[in-house]
Amino acid sequence: MNIIEFEPIGRRGECPEGESLLDAAGRLDVDIVRLCNGVGVCGRCKVQIITGEVSPITAKEKEILTVKESGRNYRLACLTRPLGNVKVHVPSESLTAPQRTQVEGLELDITPEPAFESVRVELTPPTVEKQAADETSLMRALNRTDDGTLSFDLEALRAMPPLLRAENWRVCAAVRNGEVIAIESASARWCGLAVDIGTTKIAVYLVDMDSGKTLASRGLMNPQISCGEDVVSRIYFASRSMENAGKLQALLVEALNEAILSLCGEAGIDRRVIVDAVIVGNTAIHHLFLKIPVSQLGLAPYVPALQSSIDVKARDLGLEIAPGAYVHLPPNIAGYVGADHVAMIICTSLAEASGVTLAIDIGTNTEICLNNRGEMASVSCASGPAFEGAHIRHGMRAAPGAIEHVRISGDQLTIQTIGGEPPAGICGSGLLDVAAQMKLNGVIDSTGKILDHPGVRVREDGVKEFVIAERPGKDDITISQKDIRELQLAKAAIRLGIGALVEEMNITESDIDEVIIAGAFGTFIDVESAIVIGMLPPLPRERFRQVGNAAGTGARLALVSVNERRKASSMAARVRYVELAAIFEFNQKFAAASAMKEL
Amino acid sequence: MNIIEFEPIGRRGECPEGESLLDAAGRLDVDIVRLCNGVGVCGRCKVQIITGEVSPITAKEKEILTVKESGRNYRLACLTRPLGNVKVHVPSESLTAPQRTQVEGLELDITPEPAFESVRVELTPPTVEKQAADETSLMRALNRTDDGTLSFDLEALRAMPPLLRAENWRVCAAVRNGEVIAIESASARWCGLAVDIGTTKIAVYLVDMDSGKTLASRGLMNPQISCGEDVVSRIYFASRSMENAGKLQALLVEALNEAILSLCGEAGIDRRVIVDAVIVGNTAIHHLFLKIPVSQLGLAPYVPALQSSIDVKARDLGLEIAPGAYVHLPPNIAGYVGADHVAMIICTSLAEASGVTLAIDIGTNTEICLNNRGEMASVSCASGPAFEGAHIRHGMRAAPGAIEHVRISGDQLTIQTIGGEPPAGICGSGLLDVAAQMKLNGVIDSTGKILDHPGVRVREDGVKEFVIAERPGKDDITISQKDIRELQLAKAAIRLGIGALVEEMNITESDIDEVIIAGAFGTFIDVESAIVIGMLPPLPRERFRQVGNAAGTGARLALVSVNERRKASSMAARVRYVELAAIFEFNQKFAAASAMKEL
Repeated sequence: MNIIEFEPIGRRGECPEGESLLDAAGRLDVDIVRLCNGVGVCGRCKVQIITGEVSPITAKEKEILTVKESGRNYRLACLTRPLGNVKVHVPSESLTAPQRTQVEGLELDITPEPAFESVRVELTPPTVEKQAADETSLMRALNRTDDGTLSFDLEALRAMPPLLRAENWRVCAAVRNGEVIAIESASARWCGLAVDIGTTKIAVYLVDMDSGKTLASRGLMNPQISCGEDVVSRIYFASRSMENAGKLQALLVEALNEAILSLCGEAGIDRRVIVDAVIVGNTAIHHLFLKIPVSQLGLAPYVPALQSSIDVKARDLGLEIAPGAYVHLPPNIAGYVGADHVAMIICTSLAEASGVTLAIDIGTNTEICLNNRGEMASVSCASGPAFEGAHIRHGMRAAPGAIEHVRISGDQLTIQTIGGEPPAGICGSGLLDVAAQMKLNGVIDSTGKILDHPGVRVREDGVKEFVIAERPGKDDITISQKDIRELQLAKAAIRLGIGALVEEMNITESDIDEVIIAGAFGTFIDVESAIVIGMLPPLPRERFRQVGNAAGTGARLALVSVNERRKASSMAARVRYVELAAIFEFNQKFAAASAMKEL
Repeated sequence: MNIIEFEPIGRRGECPEGESLLDAAGRLDVDIVRLCNGVGVCGRCKVQIITGEVSPITAKEKEILTVKESGRNYRLACLTRPLGNVKVHVPSESLTAPQRTQVEGLELDITPEPAFESVRVELTPPTVEKQAADETSLMRALNRTDDGTLSFDLEALRAMPPLLRAENWRVCAAVRNGEVIAIESASARWCGLAVDIGTTKIAVYLVDMDSGKTLASRGLMNPQISCGEDVVSRIYFASRSMENAGKLQALLVEALNEAILSLCGEAGIDRRVIVDAVIVGNTAIHHLFLKIPVSQLGLAPYVPALQSSIDVKARDLGLEIAPGAYVHLPPNIAGYVGADHVAMIICTSLAEASGVTLAIDIGTNTEICLNNRGEMASVSCASGPAFEGAHIRHGMRAAPGAIEHVRISGDQLTIQTIGGEPPAGICGSGLLDVAAQMKLNGVIDSTGKILDHPGVRVREDGVKEFVIAERPGKDDITISQKDIRELQLAKAAIRLGIGALVEEMNITESDIDEVIIAGAFGTFIDVESAIVIGMLPPLPRERFRQVGNAAGTGARLALVSVNERRKASSMAARVRYVELAAIFEFNQKFAAASAMKEL
């Protein structure tokens, strides 16, 4: 029996002679994608062999793996058998959606450099002869004299007198820019909170500020959806009254407070030790979270109230962490290019890239940044919620049962659902795959029109639809002409954004050396499919890199490092904002960009 | 007809030939004390002739006025008649209590140097081509670039976008230590709030921050009295539960918010333009107002939680002024010598005095500071609420109808009530006068025992009492043995404090060059009476100076000047605290200090 270890999940177990890595992974609950069910065709189960010997590379693998991949010991898990103890790295994109979400970016490749200093001290207790205020005793212990350089957060001050006496004058203080923001027992370990608030989804991370390690994380829905599906409708909602604006803020804060409580429970810590937080989101979300007016975001010239980074006391926002803690919000770039975009740029090191690099964060709103040899510009496109499953008849979010990958081969249609569950609907990556496969197999033409095809049927209401999964006793899962139109709008917006940036820099798409695709959805898509339908430019596959929730990781980087915060601020001031609405002949270009073909 | 003008009240009017200044004042509603009803005996109606000719000085005046006073054109208003147009200065001590309170210290002798900068700016509105966040436009108008030196208060930020558009991009910003704390229309005038919170009474001042002028002021009761009459009982009340502590804080804040609203109404301003506040009080009040724990103040070694000055956001305290405003609390010196004492020292320039100067702030708690040629020490004495009329059978506060001055001449007892109203009770200064007159006329002996005397009667319950005012149909106003005992405790505490400081400095009381008496009560007392009963040392009358609510004035000085705040901090660190409880043979000394005679 050989021992196999899967990284970074950290799962290990025995593997009988002759079993493939893919089967071994399945037995050990490591959810590697198996779209072609292990016959070496789909190429989705790529893994990297770190140590140990495995069966020699097969002819099928040589067709699918690039030279670069092969040189770095990449293999298809379905065609590879261990010949001894083996350590295998499973890249994020080879995992199914839920496990990928759990795994991605647990570790940060950075030395923590927090915004606060943690100081453990032992105080000299006062006596009748040698009286000293508690604050004075603490200052002395911290080696600070009354030169006015150290101040106290009121809540930290309120907590101090009983704590000093209960802890026998030995405590740990968190000091930030000369302000004592929290005091806890000497054994306390400070934590931080990183949050990426998307229009639809929220990712929350609880981070140990000493090590930078993520202790627990959670994904939740943005409850503001109840007041509007996209940012524009929320802007109008908030602008109607102060109560509405208050409601949108309260919804977010309540959801975060719940998440904080459950993350703290999971990590076994008290939320009072969370002494720092970084929150990113698009500009509208950023403003709504701070309860800054947004009506000017909904009217030309669409300017934000605040562009610079800001630090706000957690209690001023109602966030239930250490009451003296600050919440840091990185800078925005423009009305529709926000702090989440900045976090994405930070995470991908886009600003430091040397060639021509494009970074795309796909979501309900898609922000794109182009770094053309040091010159940077960003654009924002309203791609809509189609990729989240909304406005698509059988659409659903990337949850168990969602069809995430589809292949058509002749009459044969193969689907892969998240978690291998019976199909319940189609998520964004599935939709992209379906459309691309429909195009490649002549089910739609390049205007997106559904043609006659054995898989196409006409519904009772006369609408044509393409059947993806028949479900006896339930609605079949299908794609209708309207679904294709929704997708066309979404993908055209993205492609138009890319085009605007390329034009702004006077280059062509083929000059782009690397395309970074960020965002939960972007990570799960099949790049080939995105190229087939003209959402992404037809560049060689190896120029694309899918990086997962880069905004969330960027938030965590800013959380643990003031250096990253500084980089974010100077970078944001450098990025030029391109206003799509200001582009001449916008409508004509939009029509061209909506064509369903490689563009 | 001559024109007379009374300063600093600023009242003027005609005066018929032959009318005395005192009568003219009465007609013009300037309430000068008239204890002997204008016969030149009591000497309480001293005024200073500033310009104009008056009748020559009389023999009676020569007996009462000192050479120094006479040289500075002081006269008795009852014996002086104008011989032309005259401008008269009425010193605070010659006014009856209520008018004195209104008048004292309306003007500050200081050039304002506020803690914030007021900047009027006109912004460049953004366009689709030249987009800029509101905050960026403001920074540019303020000539600040994105160097991170300027930050925004969240509430100021929230107010900005609609304000900029409503005011056509012309606004006024208040910037404090690089933070924009408030934004208002360009026509706004910033105001400040100074508050002196006494154990019993609160003085609130609304100040124009440009001129330093007091726009309106108000005295109110400290509503915490409902939870305990003195600080010790409030400390115990607050220590019993968080709810109690919260209640004590809420009571204060609610009272202040009401006062703010009515002061703003009086001055015709919006409370949002109040962008700074200074609040002083004794250490316990200071802590209770900040809701800092106080239990350690009630237990040896009686140390405060906070000694240094602190700046707290108004909204963190619930104070309804500009939400981005800070509240500054000057430093405390010890557990029972607080920021109000520091404010008093600031106001009296005690720290800058060259000789030996003693400053006494008499109240429910009396704090005393001695500056012995630059060396400073303070002491705190629990003088109790007797001076406020509490624990005295017919005691009352200094309100209309209170007997504030008393003289006995043979069988004749003369009283003066505040506002000339029918007598309703005795206030603190009246109590002091009565006791002194009783001593001088043999009604009590030097142990304080009431002797047989025509004015003394025995009540039904066997208690001896001295009748001050007979009121047919009502209770007569009297002083009982118990009242005298209460007064003895109060005055002994003060005298013991003075003794402790003198001893600490190795000097004698006769070395004291000047005695400054501060506090509303201290201003109204007859110093001679205080000497007669041994409350104050028997020094020449001209060494005493009564300065009114010095703590309130000190608070106003700190409000308008950061330089005064700096002085307060360095001075507070310099003052040595003498713990009365630590003094050897305390009880014996207390017995000696309670004797009713010149000591």
